[in-house]
Amino acid sequence: MQPVLTVGSVAFDSIKTPAGEVSRVVGGAATYFSLAASLFTPVRLVAVVGDDFGPGHLRIFDGRPIDLSGLQRVAGETFRWRGEYHHDLNQRDTIYTELNVFDAFRPRIPAAFRDSPIVFLANIHPALQLEVLDQVASPRLVALDTMNYWIEGTPDALRRVLARVHVLIINDEEARQLSGERNLVAAARAIRALGPRRVVIKRGEHGVLMTSGERFFAAPAMPLEVVCDPTGAGDTFAGGFIGYLASAPQMTDAVLAQAVVAGSTMASFAVQEFGVDRLLRLDKAAVAARFGEFRQLTQFEPL
Amino acid sequence: MQPVLTVGSVAFDSIKTPAGEVSRVVGGAATYFSLAASLFTPVRLVAVVGDDFGPGHLRIFDGRPIDLSGLQRVAGETFRWRGEYHHDLNQRDTIYTELNVFDAFRPRIPAAFRDSPIVFLANIHPALQLEVLDQVASPRLVALDTMNYWIEGTPDALRRVLARVHVLIINDEEARQLSGERNLVAAARAIRALGPRRVVIKRGEHGVLMTSGERFFAAPAMPLEVVCDPTGAGDTFAGGFIGYLASAPQMTDAVLAQAVVAGSTMASFAVQEFGVDRLLRLDKAAVAARFGEFRQLTQFEPL
Repeated sequence: MQPVLTVGSVAFDSIKTPAGEVSRVVGGAATYFSLAASLFTPVRLVAVVGDDFGPGHLRIFDGRPIDLSGLQRVAGETFRWRGEYHHDLNQRDTIYTELNVFDAFRPRIPAAFRDSPIVFLANIHPALQLEVLDQVASPRLVALDTMNYWIEGTPDALRRVLARVHVLIINDEEARQLSGERNLVAAARAIRALGPRRVVIKRGEHGVLMTSGERFFAAPAMPLEVVCDPTGAGDTFAGGFIGYLASAPQMTDAVLAQAVVAGSTMASFAVQEFGVDRLLRLDKAAVAARFGEFRQLTQFEPL
Repeated sequence: MQPVLTVGSVAFDSIKTPAGEVSRVVGGAATYFSLAASLFTPVRLVAVVGDDFGPGHLRIFDGRPIDLSGLQRVAGETFRWRGEYHHDLNQRDTIYTELNVFDAFRPRIPAAFRDSPIVFLANIHPALQLEVLDQVASPRLVALDTMNYWIEGTPDALRRVLARVHVLIINDEEARQLSGERNLVAAARAIRALGPRRVVIKRGEHGVLMTSGERFFAAPAMPLEVVCDPTGAGDTFAGGFIGYLASAPQMTDAVLAQAVVAGSTMASFAVQEFGVDRLLRLDKAAVAARFGEFRQLTQFEPL
């Protein structure tokens, strides 16, 4: 069990979906990631919040092995985001994104975190992702998420950081955009040429496709009748995936496949309630039970 | 190993994809279905062709256990279709559909076929699907495919035939349209209420989702770098699925899961070349090898 360092956003989210609406709940990529990963391994969180982020908000991290000593608290307002989902939950409108204190964020990795063997760089400016890597000693595993905004806007910085990354976790459209290839097999190969040995492609309701070399592993999403709020599903997947890898003694192909399912398991819980609500009530027994449901969903006998 | 009766179209297809173009090749739902199913079990084919369909065209069925005594040959031209695929192979334009002799087709099931224990009703007018069922004695398993055209145009006839069907094989958008439910879990439940005990939802490049009762089984599509021509993939899936079921001594949940993978295996071959070309050169060893690749793609250890 090795600690995971993550750097990313902690935010106030307002979310409207066909199932209802919540206002100013704690969200952000690093929040979802940490809550998911901490069910498997200790997490070291580096992020920034404003002085409107109080002890009550911090409480969501209580009772979990999440080290908050890298959470900067500065004057100003916390990053705020509002999204509204369509009846088709694959479609969402961003109503506003106010970076606030996140705009001037420069990640400072506490001395005690610099030996972190595993690093997850959540979706932030690739130049900041590089600054993080410059502050950690020699991580055994660096994983990264990014988005269309950086693929289009800062391609050179993104390529510099990708050259130092072992695992890229990205959604299907972003994989196509980054590689210029429509076919995902070709896209994954092109991305591996940029640095990452392994590419994990998130396909939303269609599951996950992981490639390493010429091997592929695919997991479907759990069929759910009620999807309340997809916000944070990708970061929750990453938390389960990386957290599971960090908890395993070795990173074999078999462990990587289990990690994909662990990530899918966590994401399947996250979307069942608004924001992080379901993650907060989650325990290892429920995770193990749903992991078992994933086996029922996918396993079949040889011919 | 039980014989499968299938009723559907045999056609001349002209197909253009980003990989190239073919003209006037033998296609049609019943053709793809029969070629795929016949690798597992004997097939009894009922369809109609025109007098432009010669011995050379019939040759594609040679050397396989496909009984053509129900293939009517009448004066006139064979059903013709032309489709052109976009760079995104999920998009296709139908350039023309000329029903020709298929327009007046009334399925006549030869006496020797009336005891067929397994029936696959390919995508034709639901009134004709009903006529087929009226001519077979007491099939153990009736499976049916349909499309948006009948869901919109002849909903009452479609409901009458669905009430007599055990397995509906349908794509995801058609499942949503038929049920009025966007969520596939809800859609599958609504469809089961119409008659079919089992619903097999084809999701193209995203694989297949099967439901029976509250149980689900999901299989991804094989990641392929070269997809030459998606024409007939759904009917080829159905052929592998039903053919495998017919070849098994029992229809347990475990066998049904293998049947989904057998269908996915056959479809993964079909799309690699134009029309039925790859299916014609396919043998059981290649099918077994790719079935094994599906296991590598999807299997993972318990926690």
